Amino acid sequence: MTGTRSGKTRAQPLRSMAPTRRTARPAVVLDTLNGHLGYFIRRVQVWIFQDFIRALAQIDISPAQFSVLVVISANSGLSQAELAATLGIERARLARLLHQLQGRGLIQRLESSDDGRRHALQLTSQGRTLLTRAKTLAARHERQLIERLGVERHSMLLQALRDF
Amino acid sequence: MTGTRSGKTRAQPLRSMAPTRRTARPAVVLDTLNGHLGYFIRRVQVWIFQDFIRALAQIDISPAQFSVLVVISANSGLSQAELAATLGIERARLARLLHQLQGRGLIQRLESSDDGRRHALQLTSQGRTLLTRAKTLAARHERQLIERLGVERHSMLLQALRDF
Repeated sequence: MTGTRSGKTRAQPLRSMAPTRRTARPAVVLDTLNGHLGYFIRRVQVWIFQDFIRALAQIDISPAQFSVLVVISANSGLSQAELAATLGIERARLARLLHQLQGRGLIQRLESSDDGRRHALQLTSQGRTLLTRAKTLAARHERQLIERLGVERHSMLLQALRDF
Repeated sequence: MTGTRSGKTRAQPLRSMAPTRRTARPAVVLDTLNGHLGYFIRRVQVWIFQDFIRALAQIDISPAQFSVLVVISANSGLSQAELAATLGIERARLARLLHQLQGRGLIQRLESSDDGRRHALQLTSQGRTLLTRAKTLAARHERQLIERLGVERHSMLLQALRDF
């Protein structure tokens, strides 16, 4: 991460963001950014999210909405607090997300259910149908990502980041 | 990425986001999210950015502002278009970022310089002083990240994501 060493590595703009241009100017130097994981992780995260959004555009489901629907569906009687803690989403932001999903008729909040758990979340019938479609499209997006990264690198990244 | 296999893995909320709570409820299931790199990459990216923002709070420099200052400093006579292409930042967003940095007296835009290059960007003397401080604080943030990830995993992630 010294300026001298990292200065030798040239910037390699992501393909989809900055198409190669032929100019006389030498490649732009990233300097100490080359040693910062946050810089590269953000570039790749933005690329993946843009691809995910494109892949699910026909049903208009964002990455965050997808996570929320998957986890509600897989965990019966989940509360809003548990969902926020699981996904690491701020309470206010989650409330807005749930409001949107409820407005689209995809989820419902049970004010008080039989076991006394309040505000338990569940998918509506329409939500379950949409989630099935969303999972298919998301799996297609992931297959494209695996193709781009290679099976081994994808698997290695998944493992390394999951255990963070 | 089948529902059955991935369903066995339990959610492991990031430590700083969701402190461990002792409840009778079983761990929340992430279901197919376990196969999606985007989910985990986003969690880690958010964590890293929050840590970076804390580390540079005393000089109030965001990750994006840091990237912009580093690249302007390392590339003499860089244009706004080249900077946008290098960092993969949308033109409008970059314009706002530059406006902020200019307002704080950290950068200046040369409307027309000797070699005819227009809108070439450069740091002011104040900007150079601040960037030196920022690099020291950012390096400290990175050392903490390396400590958390382990040298090998940090290096492996850097390599895998840089070549994306």
